[in-house]
Amino acid sequence: MIISEIRDYLGHFFPGIELHGASDMIITGPAKIEDARSGEVSFISNEKYVRFLDTTSASLVIVGSSVPLDAYIEKTSFIRVRDPYTAFMLLLQRFSKPRSVALPGIADTAMLGSNVRIGSNVAIGDYAVIGDRCSIGDNVVIGPHAVLLHDVSVGNDTVINPHVICYDGSVIGCRVIIHSGSVIGADGFGFAPQADGSYLKIPQMGIVEIGDDTEIGANATIDRATMGSTVIGRGVKIDNHVQIAHNCRIGDHTVIAAQAGISGSVTLGSFCMIGGQAGLAGHLELADRTHVAAQAGISKSFLQQGVSLRGYPAQPMREQLKQEALVRGLGSMKARLDALEAEVRLIRKS
Amino acid sequence: MIISEIRDYLGHFFPGIELHGASDMIITGPAKIEDARSGEVSFISNEKYVRFLDTTSASLVIVGSSVPLDAYIEKTSFIRVRDPYTAFMLLLQRFSKPRSVALPGIADTAMLGSNVRIGSNVAIGDYAVIGDRCSIGDNVVIGPHAVLLHDVSVGNDTVINPHVICYDGSVIGCRVIIHSGSVIGADGFGFAPQADGSYLKIPQMGIVEIGDDTEIGANATIDRATMGSTVIGRGVKIDNHVQIAHNCRIGDHTVIAAQAGISGSVTLGSFCMIGGQAGLAGHLELADRTHVAAQAGISKSFLQQGVSLRGYPAQPMREQLKQEALVRGLGSMKARLDALEAEVRLIRKS
Amino acid sequence: MIISEIRDYLGHFFPGIELHGASDMIITGPAKIEDARSGEVSFISNEKYVRFLDTTSASLVIVGSSVPLDAYIEKTSFIRVRDPYTAFMLLLQRFSKPRSVALPGIADTAMLGSNVRIGSNVAIGDYAVIGDRCSIGDNVVIGPHAVLLHDVSVGNDTVINPHVICYDGSVIGCRVIIHSGSVIGADGFGFAPQADGSYLKIPQMGIVEIGDDTEIGANATIDRATMGSTVIGRGVKIDNHVQIAHNCRIGDHTVIAAQAGISGSVTLGSFCMIGGQAGLAGHLELADRTHVAAQAGISKSFLQQGVSLRGYPAQPMREQLKQEALVRGLGSMKARLDALEAEVRLIRKS
Repeated sequence: MIISEIRDYLGHFFPGIELHGASDMIITGPAKIEDARSGEVSFISNEKYVRFLDTTSASLVIVGSSVPLDAYIEKTSFIRVRDPYTAFMLLLQRFSKPRSVALPGIADTAMLGSNVRIGSNVAIGDYAVIGDRCSIGDNVVIGPHAVLLHDVSVGNDTVINPHVICYDGSVIGCRVIIHSGSVIGADGFGFAPQADGSYLKIPQMGIVEIGDDTEIGANATIDRATMGSTVIGRGVKIDNHVQIAHNCRIGDHTVIAAQAGISGSVTLGSFCMIGGQAGLAGHLELADRTHVAAQAGISKSFLQQGVSLRGYPAQPMREQLKQEALVRGLGSMKARLDALEAEVRLIRKS
Repeated sequence: MIISEIRDYLGHFFPGIELHGASDMIITGPAKIEDARSGEVSFISNEKYVRFLDTTSASLVIVGSSVPLDAYIEKTSFIRVRDPYTAFMLLLQRFSKPRSVALPGIADTAMLGSNVRIGSNVAIGDYAVIGDRCSIGDNVVIGPHAVLLHDVSVGNDTVINPHVICYDGSVIGCRVIIHSGSVIGADGFGFAPQADGSYLKIPQMGIVEIGDDTEIGANATIDRATMGSTVIGRGVKIDNHVQIAHNCRIGDHTVIAAQAGISGSVTLGSFCMIGGQAGLAGHLELADRTHVAAQAGISKSFLQQGVSLRGYPAQPMREQLKQEALVRGLGSMKARLDALEAEVRLIRKS
Repeated sequence: MIISEIRDYLGHFFPGIELHGASDMIITGPAKIEDARSGEVSFISNEKYVRFLDTTSASLVIVGSSVPLDAYIEKTSFIRVRDPYTAFMLLLQRFSKPRSVALPGIADTAMLGSNVRIGSNVAIGDYAVIGDRCSIGDNVVIGPHAVLLHDVSVGNDTVINPHVICYDGSVIGCRVIIHSGSVIGADGFGFAPQADGSYLKIPQMGIVEIGDDTEIGANATIDRATMGSTVIGRGVKIDNHVQIAHNCRIGDHTVIAAQAGISGSVTLGSFCMIGGQAGLAGHLELADRTHVAAQAGISKSFLQQGVSLRGYPAQPMREQLKQEALVRGLGSMKARLDALEAEVRLIRKS
């Protein structure tokens, strides 16, 4: 793209965009400001990166309203925009080539069961295994070694990366991305304790349903329901190593960071943010827009919207921070107690 | 099954069972009370679900002794039993069809090494790889893409799901279930620090042994011993993402919830329950029937049976809850200290 | 090896080594002192194992300077050395046979893309998939079902175990070991929040670079950079289930225990030790030789070398242990406060 084309493209999203400097150079791709070479575009959204303007070889830099440009305008072009970060992300999207995890068509070594329905323009990689009665939408990419057991349905434009496993009956939406090593629909962890202390396996007869536009990281697990469905909403973002147990319901556009664990039958609202390594006990409910801090342990429901939770057992942020401050102040409390005891002893003696 | 057959079947486990309402309807399967359709059986074991009796279409509902039935007996049949939850689980077992992760026989694309012993009635899926001198028992199911390296033995009636990896020498018992993505027998994390700060790898020459009737969730890891065996007892239940390090010994019928981590050379007793995301430091021992709360961090041995542990560093439940209450009361302690200081100041002035 | 050969071999590392007892017996392999049979070598580096000298059948035992040998010299030979643990590890190395996860050569069922460069003496297992333009060094072992997407390079003498996935562009050093189920180079967890609360995926265009002599456990994940590289240094040891997010930089010879999570853009120094289940928030930096306790939560940078951190939010060990002691002492503080209040009440009354 030529610089002027980039200006026009971003102008659709940001009216009133300004281009400073040369407009006719060809931009070959994006780079970090400290690494960019001639012909590349970069951005500054954090003031501490302004210093790199002295040394960068970037040909175009996307900046916000506060960066002074006069000293650099000779060697670098600038686009000034309200939100340089988002503008740069839009350019990243433009420059990114879709990763090809499988060639168009169905690899000779892919194994398809009986009565499989395959949409148009799919790519199914080497050694993929697809069970009976699966339904694969249009433009779906299934990487090498992915396994879909029987009766799995995959919506249009979804990408199943190599080594993903979807157990039988899983329902995957459209435009979903699932990264390698994730396991969708393994048995929930359900056992009935017996009189002798051993456990009887409770059959896990339900399925997993994953909504449109959801992304699931690497090595995550989402267990099938005992009965009914474990439901992941639309636009949900699930990071690596996340555990979602049987019969959970995750609301739309909720984000769950790496290594968080959601116990069985939890209901999460929409637009929640769950921090890394946080844990939620079973059968609880969090309202829409709940924020859970990293490593927090949630032991009960919080039904008011927009609450931030932290600590173990977790409580609303303000109470928790107050409590943490009190703990940090324990040394001085103890010193005050010591002094007071001494004083009272003195008073009694007098 | 017809309702009267269900009554007779459950009657074997629960003498004195009562059937109320029609007995001749065909029941096609189980469902949750709020979802059940005509012809389905459901259950109520929690009072808050009684309200669904007004609206459910279930043809048969398993209930406990306290649910009043008169208002519903016209449209629904009931079986009254001491423990409706377990009764329903028994029905789930009856209605569940075994999941078929591989067709009977050995898939053409499965690769078998030399001197492999295969029992009768096995199912080995596409692209499974089985190393030299492996021994596979009767009725074993090995899913597509499972890999057994050399000298692995698998007992009768065990199910190895797709994409499970068993490193060389692993010994898997009978009636074991291992879910997708789990890795059995990878190297323990053992390194000897060198004078220059780098690490020398300690060869991990042992194996993993897994007892009968154990179930291992998805994406779990059980490392091989440095020498000897990492031992998982009989009837152990291990959830998704659990880490069991080298040389651990896990007692029979112990349950370990998702994302818990057991460090090297830990010995766990029998009938223990380890909560989700709990962590156990290396070389410690917990006695039989120890309960570890979710997210607890165990830093030393607890050798008395039946102790409940919580917190970091974990301590017996009662002490820990007392301590947590004291922390929650810190605000009022501080207020009392403030008041007392003011009072003493007053006394001194007077 | 004959006992005298073992003495000579260890003598290269430990001058002044002493052999007591018979020197001509053939030693067939290593074993734990409590398990060792005739013909095997064992060691004692911890006094509590001295008692096994009464009963062991080991033919040779490596001991330190403090173990008295006179009572056992009849039946057992001994090598006395300053550091019996390291000496025994050196013997383990000598006795260990390299695990063969794939036969020499390229399996017929391995799929190679176009323009793949393969070094000499490689072993590539069944159903391995190697993308276009990959470069595989000399003596590399790639296990069955491993998947390298396009443009991956693997250095000499590296072992990629079964079911490892390396996304496109990954750069793996020499003498690296990656265990099963690990995912190298999946997309970083980067999303730009939109005005309606949904998220725009930020393309993850960077790669992962892994230095020489690094070992990565089972089911670990290392995400690719958004731009540039996620960098794992030389000699790094990463345990099972570890999460390393996009754009992290991990210094040489740093050790990260199981289930620890490193958030995006974290910079770790060299020779650090990160405990199991520890979590590091994004964009922070830890200096060389920082120790992080298990389950700690690091919320900010610590730029001084050699600091030990613990707790949540983590602080230097001494402050944290002091604070934990104060919390444990809260009951007695409360009792003192109660007593003092009573006393002041008495004083006021008088």
